Order: sequence, then C-alpha cells, then structure tokens
Amino acid sequence: MDIADWRRKIDEIDRKLIALLNERAHAAKEIGKLKRHTDMPIYEPERERIIYENAQRENKGPLPDLELRHIYERIIDVMRKLQKEEIHPEQEGASHDTEFDAEVNE
Amino acid sequence: MDIADWRRKIDEIDRKLIALLNERAHAAKEIGKLKRHTDMPIYEPERERIIYENAQRENKGPLPDLELRHIYERIIDVMRKLQKEEIHPEQEGASHDTEFDAEVNE
Repeated sequence: MDIADWRRKIDEIDRKLIALLNERAHAAKEIGKLKRHTDMPIYEPERERIIYENAQRENKGPLPDLELRHIYERIIDVMRKLQKEEIHPEQEGASHDTEFDAEVNE
Repeated sequence: MDIADWRRKIDEIDRKLIALLNERAHAAKEIGKLKRHTDMPIYEPERERIIYENAQRENKGPLPDLELRHIYERIIDVMRKLQKEEIHPEQEGASHDTEFDAEVNE
C-alpha cells in the first residue's frame, strides 16, 4: 500500500470514529438528563478512573497506553462539558453555534 | 435506560473506539515508514486541513463541530508523534515504556 492507500484507510477509520464519538456524546447527554433531578455530580472521579482502566486494558497497541490516555483525556473533557449542558440546560446557548474553524483557547 | 445501562453502552463504544484508534495509529506508522526515505515532512498542513474538513462534513451530531475538532486536534497530535518515531526511529526509545498513569505535562 502506498501513502494514498493508507490515507484512504484513515479517512474510512475517521468516518467510523466520528459516528462512535457521536454515539458516546448522545449517551453522555442522556446521563446528563438523568442526573438533572438528582444531586449526582458532573465530575465523578471514580467513574473516570474506571474509563481509563478499561482503556488501558482494552489497548492492544500499537498506540502506547500514555498516548491513548492523552486522547481519552480530551474525549472525557468534551463529554463532561456536554453532560454539564444537559444537567444545567439554562447555561447552554453560549457554547453552541460555534464555528468549526474558530480560534480555540484552552 | 438508567445511568448504569448508558454506562455499559459507553464501555462498549469505548472498546470500538480504542480498536479504531489503534488501527489509525497503525496506518500513521505505516505512512511514517513510507516517508522514511523520502523528504516528505511529518507535518503536512494541507492533509490536516482535509482531515478537519472531512470530520466536519461527517459530523451528524449531537457532538458540536467545535468539540469534535477539539478531540481531533488531540488525535492528530498523537498520530503525528507516532509517525515521527517511524520516520526517525533512532529517536524512539524515550517516549516508550511510559507509565499509563504518569504525570503529563503539555
């Protein structure tokens, strides 16, 4: 396979990744709705610890564990933010209708 | 579905995500090997622009485009690093055998 072939393969993987990330976002939002009328916190360190442990256990490589963790840290940050918007919908608005190409400050 | 059901769903999604991220890492490394004896750069802004454009086009939500981009920025950072290790394998070592729980400074 040449570089163009591998890139087509990556584009195909990305389509699946994007669909799965959206499924995960949907689930995070549903949990947010369920938390809305409880006093469960958005940030649950024990649940996050389990997610990282699962990720490490499922990781067969070639992605090093530490790099997978880097990616998961970002995924969890994003999902926590989405969940927060479901728990406190009145604060929503501001983070929506953002431009894909907008400048990002973190 | 209650919170436990949604979490089982998330764990299942994570297994698929981890497998796909590893497939993507494999492809990035293979491209690195192919680049090894060429003068193609590791960082190719045009290719990265295409990846972000594809991601935005494929995104059907509920993940906002900006949040998907945040996740992809991290994925691309990690993949670029893996590819660099393939292009210059002599510099490898240092970033391997890292602990999953190691302190991360970015």
